Amino acid sequence: MSQTLTPENREKLRHVSTATLTTALFKRGLRNTFMQGPRRIDAGGPAMVGEAYTMRYIPAREDLDRLEAFKDPAHPQRKGIESCPPGHVFVIDSRGDPRAASAGSILVARLMRRGAAGIVTDGGFRDTPGIAALGIPAYHARPAAPTNLIRHHAVDLDVPIGCGDVAVYPRDILVGDDEGVVVIPAAIANEVAAEAHEMTAFEDFVMERVQAGQTIVGLYPPTQEKTVQDFEAWRKRNGR
Amino acid sequence: MSQTLTPENREKLRHVSTATLTTALFKRGLRNTFMQGPRRIDAGGPAMVGEAYTMRYIPAREDLDRLEAFKDPAHPQRKGIESCPPGHVFVIDSRGDPRAASAGSILVARLMRRGAAGIVTDGGFRDTPGIAALGIPAYHARPAAPTNLIRHHAVDLDVPIGCGDVAVYPRDILVGDDEGVVVIPAAIANEVAAEAHEMTAFEDFVMERVQAGQTIVGLYPPTQEKTVQDFEAWRKRNGR
Amino acid sequence: MSQTLTPENREKLRHVSTATLTTALFKRGLRNTFMQGPRRIDAGGPAMVGEAYTMRYIPAREDLDRLEAFKDPAHPQRKGIESCPPGHVFVIDSRGDPRAASAGSILVARLMRRGAAGIVTDGGFRDTPGIAALGIPAYHARPAAPTNLIRHHAVDLDVPIGCGDVAVYPRDILVGDDEGVVVIPAAIANEVAAEAHEMTAFEDFVMERVQAGQTIVGLYPPTQEKTVQDFEAWRKRNGR
Amino acid sequence: MSQTLTPENREKLRHVSTATLTTALFKRGLRNTFMQGPRRIDAGGPAMVGEAYTMRYIPAREDLDRLEAFKDPAHPQRKGIESCPPGHVFVIDSRGDPRAASAGSILVARLMRRGAAGIVTDGGFRDTPGIAALGIPAYHARPAAPTNLIRHHAVDLDVPIGCGDVAVYPRDILVGDDEGVVVIPAAIANEVAAEAHEMTAFEDFVMERVQAGQTIVGLYPPTQEKTVQDFEAWRKRNGR
Amino acid sequence: MSQTLTPENREKLRHVSTATLTTALFKRGLRNTFMQGPRRIDAGGPAMVGEAYTMRYIPAREDLDRLEAFKDPAHPQRKGIESCPPGHVFVIDSRGDPRAASAGSILVARLMRRGAAGIVTDGGFRDTPGIAALGIPAYHARPAAPTNLIRHHAVDLDVPIGCGDVAVYPRDILVGDDEGVVVIPAAIANEVAAEAHEMTAFEDFVMERVQAGQTIVGLYPPTQEKTVQDFEAWRKRNGR
Amino acid sequence: MSQTLTPENREKLRHVSTATLTTALFKRGLRNTFMQGPRRIDAGGPAMVGEAYTMRYIPAREDLDRLEAFKDPAHPQRKGIESCPPGHVFVIDSRGDPRAASAGSILVARLMRRGAAGIVTDGGFRDTPGIAALGIPAYHARPAAPTNLIRHHAVDLDVPIGCGDVAVYPRDILVGDDEGVVVIPAAIANEVAAEAHEMTAFEDFVMERVQAGQTIVGLYPPTQEKTVQDFEAWRKRNGR
Repeated sequence: MSQTLTPENREKLRHVSTATLTTALFKRGLRNTFMQGPRRIDAGGPAMVGEAYTMRYIPAREDLDRLEAFKDPAHPQRKGIESCPPGHVFVIDSRGDPRAASAGSILVARLMRRGAAGIVTDGGFRDTPGIAALGIPAYHARPAAPTNLIRHHAVDLDVPIGCGDVAVYPRDILVGDDEGVVVIPAAIANEVAAEAHEMTAFEDFVMERVQAGQTIVGLYPPTQEKTVQDFEAWRKRNGR
Repeated sequence: MSQTLTPENREKLRHVSTATLTTALFKRGLRNTFMQGPRRIDAGGPAMVGEAYTMRYIPAREDLDRLEAFKDPAHPQRKGIESCPPGHVFVIDSRGDPRAASAGSILVARLMRRGAAGIVTDGGFRDTPGIAALGIPAYHARPAAPTNLIRHHAVDLDVPIGCGDVAVYPRDILVGDDEGVVVIPAAIANEVAAEAHEMTAFEDFVMERVQAGQTIVGLYPPTQEKTVQDFEAWRKRNGR
Repeated sequence: MSQTLTPENREKLRHVSTATLTTALFKRGLRNTFMQGPRRIDAGGPAMVGEAYTMRYIPAREDLDRLEAFKDPAHPQRKGIESCPPGHVFVIDSRGDPRAASAGSILVARLMRRGAAGIVTDGGFRDTPGIAALGIPAYHARPAAPTNLIRHHAVDLDVPIGCGDVAVYPRDILVGDDEGVVVIPAAIANEVAAEAHEMTAFEDFVMERVQAGQTIVGLYPPTQEKTVQDFEAWRKRNGR
Repeated sequence: MSQTLTPENREKLRHVSTATLTTALFKRGLRNTFMQGPRRIDAGGPAMVGEAYTMRYIPAREDLDRLEAFKDPAHPQRKGIESCPPGHVFVIDSRGDPRAASAGSILVARLMRRGAAGIVTDGGFRDTPGIAALGIPAYHARPAAPTNLIRHHAVDLDVPIGCGDVAVYPRDILVGDDEGVVVIPAAIANEVAAEAHEMTAFEDFVMERVQAGQTIVGLYPPTQEKTVQDFEAWRKRNGR
Repeated sequence: MSQTLTPENREKLRHVSTATLTTALFKRGLRNTFMQGPRRIDAGGPAMVGEAYTMRYIPAREDLDRLEAFKDPAHPQRKGIESCPPGHVFVIDSRGDPRAASAGSILVARLMRRGAAGIVTDGGFRDTPGIAALGIPAYHARPAAPTNLIRHHAVDLDVPIGCGDVAVYPRDILVGDDEGVVVIPAAIANEVAAEAHEMTAFEDFVMERVQAGQTIVGLYPPTQEKTVQDFEAWRKRNGR
Repeated sequence: MSQTLTPENREKLRHVSTATLTTALFKRGLRNTFMQGPRRIDAGGPAMVGEAYTMRYIPAREDLDRLEAFKDPAHPQRKGIESCPPGHVFVIDSRGDPRAASAGSILVARLMRRGAAGIVTDGGFRDTPGIAALGIPAYHARPAAPTNLIRHHAVDLDVPIGCGDVAVYPRDILVGDDEGVVVIPAAIANEVAAEAHEMTAFEDFVMERVQAGQTIVGLYPPTQEKTVQDFEAWRKRNGR
């Protein structure tokens, strides 16, 4: 059952790491939530948070996948770029194949202009220097100069897909940082956001103590009562 | 534009090799028609010829892909087995992942009983000794004992897919021999069948000559006029 | 907590498939129990059932791994072959590297003579035609003629290892058939054997019905009451 | 039939992207022109443009590939560095193997001093921090500290090779940017350079419009007459 | 320095295993002599022994690699088949790529008719059922139905190549059994053949003892004086 | 036989490259000393030099590898972090699997605070932006957000392991620069450090000459007597 992510939790997700999120999901029995392969083109940019809007590629066939195909406004790649709702992340199933591009800088610029929150493929993008300059979170496996037609045929929009060996259902919440992309099932996105926010406070507290020279024994995880008390005091002191 | 494969051409396809077919397709500009990976479980069996009926898997998610899922008669894997038309080949997009099964011997037996022409996955099957004994053409990458739920979630039936890095559209013609599986676009299946049939006659003639000690120069390809004449004579003599 | 596998359950494990066992383990939350890669050299032989006795390889180093190393009776590979208890399976962590042999026919023959139940590596064996002729279950990734010294250095006996991307603890129960090898944690081997034995009876019943033309809907899984009744009658009739 | 690249077209190639070039080549039926794997060490540097001068490696053999081999001035790696013509790109077929170096900073510095336009391997380089500091375009798969002798044996100079799964014939034109390297057959390099130059003007125009908020429908590709007119006006305005 | 393999040693090589040969070569410091990947199509056939005659493929290019190319009698693949000397092994560097065929049954039949000792590729063959029926040793990675033109361009004959990640120089001696193919440098082929013949006698003796129940300690390797004496007696008794 | 690395040689190792070290090791017959895969997170930082302190992972098992496992202070990962001696490098055998983390920023911070010289895995780290900011040399294959429990089970401390396909024995000397990590056997670390120091002086001299326009013939390697003399003069002039 899907839920709407609250603005408060959307904001919280901007300030937690994908590492923390995968642990919150692991607690709920979900082990396969981090995309294997996709990495960020514009390292160091702001976090990516948004609902999944998907596109599916199958292998290209020479008689169908010619340059003329793009003249059709119903071509799924072009239509998808013009249909992805604001705040959503455009997620592409490229079968993990970066030998041809999933998209290039012009389409990504248009997507950004239309308000998308990011773009993700388990293949590769072309014009990556241009994409890096745009300022929209973009994740891929590696640069891929050749046009998508050489390997990929866009066939579906907004259907369940696999990306980076993880299941992505439309409206799942995608969060990306400099490590990569995690997929949160829509139905638990609010609770996971809240829990990860709490976990992050504890992790910040622990890191401060470790930097100050404290052992991790009893601290991480907090098996000593004193750790729990110290953390409570720290939260008050730091307004966390 | 799709066409119906004539019974005559269907029969011809049973007697040509996938190697010959890929050359006939290459003449038409189609270079990527042979599935990479899938190999035959029941080596030595009769050729597989039939229309594609497809199923698509995405990665599994632990909360959705539990054993209980199979109790739903609308589960695409179960529904697909009961819906694949007679004479068709059940083709499965498993994202090339053989770490869990695409199907097992009970479903394959049911599929066979319902008249399917074969089953193909770019993942793996379980109960492969049982499948080999059934006598239905079956192609996979390697044995995969774990149930599909561990890695795969069946999501679609009868949509365009990729299998073995080749595009497969519903109703394309699949032909399999001991080397593997070739995909023929529906619209050209009749002409390709007819041409491959002719090519096979010539290849048989050439092989006979080579076995008799003739050089391939001028013979294969037939750049000498004498080769063309000899072949015509051979066809008459052999009723080909 | 470890348990001894009863003779009765050991016998049951000889007559269930690895596919059935992975499902019984999946019901208990264990998803990663089937070795990825190792396949049987002597296809068609009897099932392999036995406790794990392990050996661990690390990469070779030229100054340590010379032919002279084998003269030392404490060399772990040689010592392991002479120490593996009867009824056990010799399992080798070769880091999935088949570029040099994990063992050859002479050592496997000695192991067999000493009463081992089988041998498994996620690398490769040498002298595989000779191993196939011995009649002991043997699983590997592919033939590897070069001596182990070229790539592997035997370092440990009877410690927890990984093999085919699955954890293997000493005394776990390994079961192998023509599909591959499954690892059953020692503590649950008896209950899993018993359950898989029951499941196999049901699967045999289902296969008989499917071969007779029955749909899988309501039958597999048995969502119809009638299936349950038919199965009970079948068991009585067939003494299962 | 080979042609000389005109100075004007050589300059044009410095200002077009590998993405644009692969599309110009795709229009001519060439689908496999972008090297898979090699990426730039000195990201952000100027474009690489030059004729291919090739070297071929085969696997090393311990008795032939000793450090003494380099004392021979006819050793192909050393001879190649001293023979590569100015303005050319030294392209190395390393069989895609980055486990040992294709070359190191001293040889690359010498190559640069002799006027080469760049260096490319589908293996790896050693001394990569030093190479990055030199200021010559250099492409490889990943750093590889070990000397080439450990894995590679230089055998040929200036012969057709494969690099990054693309055919490279001596005198083909190689163009590299921050995405990677494209290979242009010598016979069509002038026409491809001219066409890519034109395409780049249109792409720049499109990007400007997209950034200004225009939809891609009708614009990219230019299916509306107005787009064609707008582009003509833009060219005049911008002197393109 | 090359030597001619004596008829006596050629015969000896027919009766030793690739495993034994890799150890004899390892004693001489050669660690990388067994081809990784190629396996025998016609398992169980006689050993393959012969001098290397090589062919080199680079990646195909669409404008050069058309079906018409085969009409040229100088096409290296066709010319090579007609030039490979009797008793030699035709060895093909396919860059480890089995996505298109290295050769098919007609060419292999011609090669056999001309007296070749075998054919090896690190790619794949097409018409493999036909090749298996011919009775000539043939090694490849896996079946590959598509014509070579789709991926491969034949460029050189009788030059040093890599095959299965091993260096192959023209006139090296190739030996193949059911495990795979080993490459023996021409200059040491006679001494390696003689030594492997001796080693095989000892291994047969050891296997007999192991089958009779003797421990490997002191026996293999023969660290006990008694083993040496027993072996001498065994040789006399068995005429080895 | 192990030796202590002298402070002088430890300092020398901080100023030689991994490339130079692999050549010094190759001279001693050691060909496999550079880790394949691990690359530096904090590129541009100071060299890493230290003794190996190792940890070994095997694949995870769901019933054992739960979050509660970390509460046990004897858990090898937690215990290892608190036990690694100052000046040592924590080296992790993750079986080359970066699908889950080998460690995260809190543990790495604690390790750094305790005086470790660096951390290396052939898997991946989580919290990599945080690790990069710490200032401790850290090498991995790629970012891996999921907690180690999802794929890895820590089982051993301070035993011989493989990492990046190289053998690592406790107390071996690890040296890391921006190219990667080399492993020096403890027994030869002092002599290798001294020799690499000398080699580096010569390489610096050669690079200066090459930058000044000198050919590499006769210079590198120094086959001309004049090169030897020039180098001696250069050393005096530059106090090397």
